Order: sequence, then C-alpha cells, then structure tokens
Amino acid sequence: MNERIWTAALAVIGDEILSGRTQDKNIAQVAAWLNVQGIRLAEVRVVPDRTDAIVEAVNVLRARNDYLFTTGGIGPTHDDITVDAIAAALGVPVVHHPRALAVLEHYYETRGGLTEARMRMARVPEGADLIENRMSGAPGIRIGNIFVMAGVPHITAGMLDSLTGTLEGGLPVLSRTIGCWVAESEVADLLGAVERAHDGVAIGSYPFFRDGRTGANFVVRATDQALVDSCIADLTARLEAEGWAVVADGI
Amino acid sequence: MNERIWTAALAVIGDEILSGRTQDKNIAQVAAWLNVQGIRLAEVRVVPDRTDAIVEAVNVLRARNDYLFTTGGIGPTHDDITVDAIAAALGVPVVHHPRALAVLEHYYETRGGLTEARMRMARVPEGADLIENRMSGAPGIRIGNIFVMAGVPHITAGMLDSLTGTLEGGLPVLSRTIGCWVAESEVADLLGAVERAHDGVAIGSYPFFRDGRTGANFVVRATDQALVDSCIADLTARLEAEGWAVVADGI
Repeated sequence: MNERIWTAALAVIGDEILSGRTQDKNIAQVAAWLNVQGIRLAEVRVVPDRTDAIVEAVNVLRARNDYLFTTGGIGPTHDDITVDAIAAALGVPVVHHPRALAVLEHYYETRGGLTEARMRMARVPEGADLIENRMSGAPGIRIGNIFVMAGVPHITAGMLDSLTGTLEGGLPVLSRTIGCWVAESEVADLLGAVERAHDGVAIGSYPFFRDGRTGANFVVRATDQALVDSCIADLTARLEAEGWAVVADGI
Repeated sequence: MNERIWTAALAVIGDEILSGRTQDKNIAQVAAWLNVQGIRLAEVRVVPDRTDAIVEAVNVLRARNDYLFTTGGIGPTHDDITVDAIAAALGVPVVHHPRALAVLEHYYETRGGLTEARMRMARVPEGADLIENRMSGAPGIRIGNIFVMAGVPHITAGMLDSLTGTLEGGLPVLSRTIGCWVAESEVADLLGAVERAHDGVAIGSYPFFRDGRTGANFVVRATDQALVDSCIADLTARLEAEGWAVVADGI
C-alpha cells in the first residue's frame, strides 16, 4: 500500500511560551486533531513575537508541508503581530475583512461597541477567508494553505472543530498501546526485532517511573488496523514468552 | 545599558510529541531554567525521530544560538537515534564514553547487568562530555555548545539541575504580572502606550475566560527590576484611572 502522506506543520507564536510563563497546550491538541483528519504533524516551531522570526518559519513550513497551522498573536493588543507577519511572508497587504468586521460589530454590540483596538481583529492578509470562532468575537484566518488560529487553547479547539472534515487528508494513523512493568533496556532488542518483522509499523517505547517502579508503554502505529493488531499480538506474545506481564491498553 | 544577550534554542525530539500522544513538558521547564541562567530561549523546534530532520534542526539552531539543548531519544531502544543524528550533524563518529560505561555498569550491577542494549546509553559523539543524571543510569551529553538531555521530564530536570550555574549568561529577564477582569480589547491602546513610554520593557497581554468572565493578565518583562517596577506602577495607575480594578500578581 503506497498511499499519499499528507503533512502539516505548526508554528506556535508567542513570547509567553518561550519565557516558560505559559505551558503550551496547542501542540498536542493540533496533533491529535490532525491525525483524525488523516494528516501527520511533521514539525513544530515555537517562535517569538517578532516579525522576522515568524516570516522565516512561515515561509519554510508552508513550502514543505501540505498545510501550515499557526497559533497565537491574533488578538487586539500591540504584541499581536501574526497577521502582519503572515501578510509580509506572503507579500500581500493587510486589509479589513468585511465579514469579520460584521461579526465583530455584532459580537461587541452588547459589549461596549467596536473600538479601533477591536477592529484590529478584523485585519487579514488580502485574499484570506475566515475560520469560524464560536467562542469569542475574533475569527481565525485561512489563506492559501495557512490556517491562522488563536493562542487560547479552548478558542483554538473551536476553530479546529469548525475545520473538521474540510481538509483533504490520507489515511489516519491508528495506534494501540500495551504496557509492561519493565525497564525498556531489558526489552530493547525484542522491540527492534518485532518492528523489523512488521512492515509498515512503527513501535515507540515510552519509559516512565511510577510508584517507585520502572515501566514502559509500547505504542504500535500504522495506517492499517490489521497490521496494528497483528503487531500488538506478536509483541505481546514475545514479551510474555520472556516472562513479562503485559497490560492491555498501557499502564 | 547595552548588555550582551545570550540565547539558546531547544530541539524537542520525538514522534510521541508530534502524534499528540505525549504532552510536552520540557519546553516550559527548559525555558524557565534558562531564564534563571540569564539565557533567553529564542526558538524551539519539535522534530520527529528521523535523522535528516534532527540533523537539519541541530545544524541551524546550534549555529545561530549560543547554546542548543535537545530533549528525547537517548534511551536504549531502536527509536532512540539522537546520539547518532547529532554525531552525523557534527561529522564525528559515535564512540562509547568510558565514564558513561562505568556509570552504567555500576547502576545495572544490581539490576540485571550491563546488556548490549544498555550499553547503547554510553554511546556519545566523539569528543563529548557527560551531564550527570542522578535519577537513572544514562547520562546526558555535552558536545560543543550542544546539551543532549533525556525526554522524561523529571530526568531532564535533574540534568538541568546539575548544569545550574555552569553556563555563561547575561542578565536574567525579570517579570511582574498584574491582572484585570477586563477584555484585553478594552485596554489595548493603553497597553501599547505604556510599553512605548518605558524603554527596555516588554508587556505581554494574556487573555483568559474563567468562571464565565473575561480577564487578562499583563506581564511586564525587563532585565532591570527598577524598570519593571516603575512600568507596573504606571500601568496600574492608568488602568485604575480608567476604572479597572487591578489584581496584584495576576489572576
């Protein structure tokens, strides 16, 4: 089976992530959502609120992936420069999107009116479409293969939700997990051998320490459920043959 | 004041982050630690367990930053390829580090002995030094300006701890936060004006929704405590003058 693999990149934009102030939650959320769309998250960059850094990341990532998602920097304040930076990367001017203005006007009708600062959230690179935002006023932006989303995770979630099923993708990656109370170094050779014996399957080994004990989860990934299942069965059998108790669905 | 700014990059290596399976915790942890060392985290890349992707990231990031940190991919299993990829990036062979072998031999003496798989964790790019790991057997690796650390966050924490105070840095970035129950769009102009009025200060605005209400925290950052304090005082006064109650230390 030689299916086309669709890839996406994510640019997380924001000084607050690089300063350690804010724990990013968008990488995992976008990754999990993409996977369901049959698109692989191939790479992520976290960049500061600086035009040159955003432009560089946007231009590299959009060129070598089917899709580029960005999170952060689309609010109304002076540190929100994502729209201007993406317009600069694309070489197009920034304009007010008429429907975004209408959406914001309606949203702020009962919230003090549409001020100049709030009108900033209707600015888009020329030629852009909007991504619906059911959570707050400011919409996301789609231009070419770039999807510009909010930084606040629950708003991003709503934007992803409104994009669900609209992007062309391939087969989603399926996975199953098993766990063992074993140091992964005890079974490293076994894992490698099982992976080599099952074409099209990748096995990830994720060790942990919990309650004072060493364990590991083994994640088997493939685009074909039968492949995943037969690899899990083989891996389980070989682990049990060496005397390790296997915990279905991981520990 | 024109102090030299020291920068670091972080390469997070691992399919488990890109698949959404694992929520990264190392970005925030490394960022916060670096800041105390007087080093700014300038950029982060998350790359898959693939040699070409790691080599590209390592070579770009080490060249344009004072330091490069990596997390992930230094365990004993087949998907742990960080050491080989970094050696490839540097054009040096991989060798067994004698002290790492001794450390592992001692660690596994009472844990089943030093198998071939476990000996993998003593492999380093030629010319590397070790970073102490008090949590488990496998040490981290330092070569040139590259610091190779574990993926498991509490092991990474131990490695950072053993590096504390050993890296040359500049002035740490200091910050103070205040919060308001206000939509950030209400005070966007005010924030921009305050930032412009205080040279050397950056103000970040971080909106949130909590208990059904809209609020925002404002983070003032500078390398000089007096600058931070006078900016916070000015910002607080201007917010209160517009009728907003200010919560010290943020909401």
